[in-house]
Amino acid sequence: MTTRVTIADIAREAGVSEATVSKVLNGRDEVAPATRSRVQGLLDARGYERRGGRVERPAGLVDLVTSELNTPWAMEVLRGAEQEARRAGAAVVVTATEGRDDDSWLERVTARRSDGVLLVLSPLAPAAARRLTAAGIPFVLVDPVGGFDASVPTVGVTNWAGGLAATEHLLGLGHRRIGVITGPPDLVCSQQRLDGYRAALGRSAIAVDDALIRYGDFRADGGGRELAALLALPDPPTAVFAGSDLQATGVYALAHRRGLRIPDQLSVVGFDDVALCEWVSPTLTTVRQPLLEMARIAIRTVLDPPGTDQPLRIELATTLVTRESTAPPAR
Amino acid sequence: MTTRVTIADIAREAGVSEATVSKVLNGRDEVAPATRSRVQGLLDARGYERRGGRVERPAGLVDLVTSELNTPWAMEVLRGAEQEARRAGAAVVVTATEGRDDDSWLERVTARRSDGVLLVLSPLAPAAARRLTAAGIPFVLVDPVGGFDASVPTVGVTNWAGGLAATEHLLGLGHRRIGVITGPPDLVCSQQRLDGYRAALGRSAIAVDDALIRYGDFRADGGGRELAALLALPDPPTAVFAGSDLQATGVYALAHRRGLRIPDQLSVVGFDDVALCEWVSPTLTTVRQPLLEMARIAIRTVLDPPGTDQPLRIELATTLVTRESTAPPAR
Repeated sequence: MTTRVTIADIAREAGVSEATVSKVLNGRDEVAPATRSRVQGLLDARGYERRGGRVERPAGLVDLVTSELNTPWAMEVLRGAEQEARRAGAAVVVTATEGRDDDSWLERVTARRSDGVLLVLSPLAPAAARRLTAAGIPFVLVDPVGGFDASVPTVGVTNWAGGLAATEHLLGLGHRRIGVITGPPDLVCSQQRLDGYRAALGRSAIAVDDALIRYGDFRADGGGRELAALLALPDPPTAVFAGSDLQATGVYALAHRRGLRIPDQLSVVGFDDVALCEWVSPTLTTVRQPLLEMARIAIRTVLDPPGTDQPLRIELATTLVTRESTAPPAR
Repeated sequence: MTTRVTIADIAREAGVSEATVSKVLNGRDEVAPATRSRVQGLLDARGYERRGGRVERPAGLVDLVTSELNTPWAMEVLRGAEQEARRAGAAVVVTATEGRDDDSWLERVTARRSDGVLLVLSPLAPAAARRLTAAGIPFVLVDPVGGFDASVPTVGVTNWAGGLAATEHLLGLGHRRIGVITGPPDLVCSQQRLDGYRAALGRSAIAVDDALIRYGDFRADGGGRELAALLALPDPPTAVFAGSDLQATGVYALAHRRGLRIPDQLSVVGFDDVALCEWVSPTLTTVRQPLLEMARIAIRTVLDPPGTDQPLRIELATTLVTRESTAPPAR
């Protein structure tokens, strides 16, 4: 059995008053940086957890921390978060980390005693998770790409099932040479979507041709580049599962440049179902991630944390949305 | 000369203590609704203005209130606001009104003593403006469509010059039959962009043909519907100034359905320069609104208000961004 670490323990070890430790915990800025850093280090190292969670009155604010705001689905997540927070009488504070790995957002989140934090595609360093826990601030990762850190509560989607549905849709139309452009190999969701693709081929007793499997970057550039590689094959595909809607726009651009008509000469399926699916011509068949609903569940999770020590991983179901970009193969 | 209204005046007239008036001003919730409403009504009616502006310490929060989050440029404005607020050590709280005309955001903005409010395409009722002024909270309208309420500080763009540049670009390519699909007739920017179009034709000594002028809704639907009307003309245009990027996607969709190749058979120019310009095929030539910079200026304006009683109207210059959707006419 371990003894619970107290503020007094930390104060003694750091050689400061208990009031100073409290100030660090509450993110006050009256503490000298060196002292704050020493105290915070001890809080982290000793695994301090605030007794009984948050004690102050709710701030009425939930923080949404995202690595970038200029992705089509960041807006969808924000929309859902704003709606649900508003319903609960709270408001959403938005921070974009934009690749900076400083923790300034963490300082401010604890200083303003945020009611909770939604992380959107922002990796959460273990030390940051410990600080939020110590400050009694619940957090959850809204994860459209499947980071899959088991120690962090997460709301994600069924990426494998989505890859399966996309591929089965194309098989159902009669396609047999189906290319796949999945995301970066280091993202779990890239693997999951690809495995769903493999599983669908397996169910139809079609051998997987590794030449038809490409890794993109979930951006338009990757879609164009990898489609070029697929079209250079001796026996190019008649359909492509483009891995994400943004990647599909790159597929569209290259097809357009090459004079390939979608869907007559090439069927395309995306993944995400963000607004751009309706903006492109032809409109894009895609696998829908319920981003709005994911954000709402995340807000409910932080504002009313489930009474469990286990970090939850919630996965919402994807659904296929059929539009104009898929058709039977020409031959 | 008018005498300045004091808290004591309001308290006397409302039959409450000065402390109660202060609580209403500061958005505290210990005041009974009926009392709050009576006091607020008097503050509004008597034109109370807090002496010397804000007195409390900065909250470190700026509110961004937008009518809808699911427009492509709302994200751009948010990005700019977040960057600039962060630079100033503040964070951005996002509220979407989504057509509701309740003032709940106003309650919360005053309650949390926001450092300032950015309104994005949200009309600001005069009473709301008075309440923000009374609470010492600076506000500014970030206005990509030219609402042009002279009583509200505004950051906008040079819509007329943008319409001129779009049309002159098409004239320079050799087009003589140029259609225009501007926005809803009740928006000032629709008129300004249209007047820029007219001015460009005038400079080239080309008579304006009213049949080539259409009013859309700044959405994809309007673009498609109005292009259909233009194509039904006995002498249809060879180029279209589509009024907004979103409207241009509707033009693309109809052109695609009709088998009209862009730009070979139809040149298209948008307005806004949001991310979708790079997602559509061919990429969209457009008039750039510096949305990021508009939001930054708006943040600076509220965090460091200019020392003037006059509501500022700042207009940033638009620039033409040439991409793939424009070319000389076929004939």
